[in-house]
Amino acid sequence: MTSSLTLSSSSMPLLTKSLFFMECALKKAHIAYNKGEVPVGAVIVDINNNFKIISSSSNCKESSADPCGHAEILAIRNASSIIGDWRLTGMIIYVTLEPCLMCLAAIKEARLDGVFFAAYDSKGGALSLNYNLYKDKRLNHNFFVVGGIRSFESAKLLSDFFRAKRQNK
Amino acid sequence: MTSSLTLSSSSMPLLTKSLFFMECALKKAHIAYNKGEVPVGAVIVDINNNFKIISSSSNCKESSADPCGHAEILAIRNASSIIGDWRLTGMIIYVTLEPCLMCLAAIKEARLDGVFFAAYDSKGGALSLNYNLYKDKRLNHNFFVVGGIRSFESAKLLSDFFRAKRQNK
Repeated sequence: MTSSLTLSSSSMPLLTKSLFFMECALKKAHIAYNKGEVPVGAVIVDINNNFKIISSSSNCKESSADPCGHAEILAIRNASSIIGDWRLTGMIIYVTLEPCLMCLAAIKEARLDGVFFAAYDSKGGALSLNYNLYKDKRLNHNFFVVGGIRSFESAKLLSDFFRAKRQNK
Repeated sequence: MTSSLTLSSSSMPLLTKSLFFMECALKKAHIAYNKGEVPVGAVIVDINNNFKIISSSSNCKESSADPCGHAEILAIRNASSIIGDWRLTGMIIYVTLEPCLMCLAAIKEARLDGVFFAAYDSKGGALSLNYNLYKDKRLNHNFFVVGGIRSFESAKLLSDFFRAKRQNK
């Protein structure tokens, strides 16, 4: 799932850009929601290419019966497939939920420059559980992490999803 | 990449079984070696199904341009695809190199019962770097980890690979 969407103004401040890209990720989370999947979406953007969106994905762990079917992993694998390189240097990922340990480590493996996430995940989020590998100097790649961008919308979507699921049981 | 191979004697002790399955994983590592990939192989075995091999994979990160193309991730995704469930409960994974953080976390995500690995990886192995998530009670799944099975063969294959690579530079 790719998009050639670019921001019209390259001079737009990073925060404004980030709100826009998180909006794109939230749209992907809504797609997951409508398919009965935990609503998480991710978007990968190339900083050096006028912030072009390289790939975007929705969580599809249940429907694809894939334990690695998290939105971040899919967006990373799609982006690498598109550019023909496992190194996503110069790119950043936007994701609507704090990455789990597997996804945060995959972001390291792909050499992404950084991650913006929306809602915090106190039970499963790598950072919330103090697995701060993004700044571990023993590892071969470090990157930045910023949480909380559009966290309200993402947290509401997630709580709506789980409430509906409980009511349908 | 799957195999219907089963052990003839279900009463064979676990250590003997483990030596055999690590031998299978080492064969997969040799396939990676011959393709110019870092030689790592993995095999997933179903304990409840007479230790049947469900899937096996070789590292193909470079040739597939996939940062998630590690042997463990591929074996996990293959196994889930074969059984049609992201939960690999009752299964164990054999891998020729200590899993990195991404792969150890993927083993948790897939709910595997445990992991046997061969060579230790002091620079990139999750356990060697003290990321002991396999026994973290805050997480929703814990599993066993045993290292060192056939470590000599695996370590030799890896050092042969990197020596040849340096010489060809």
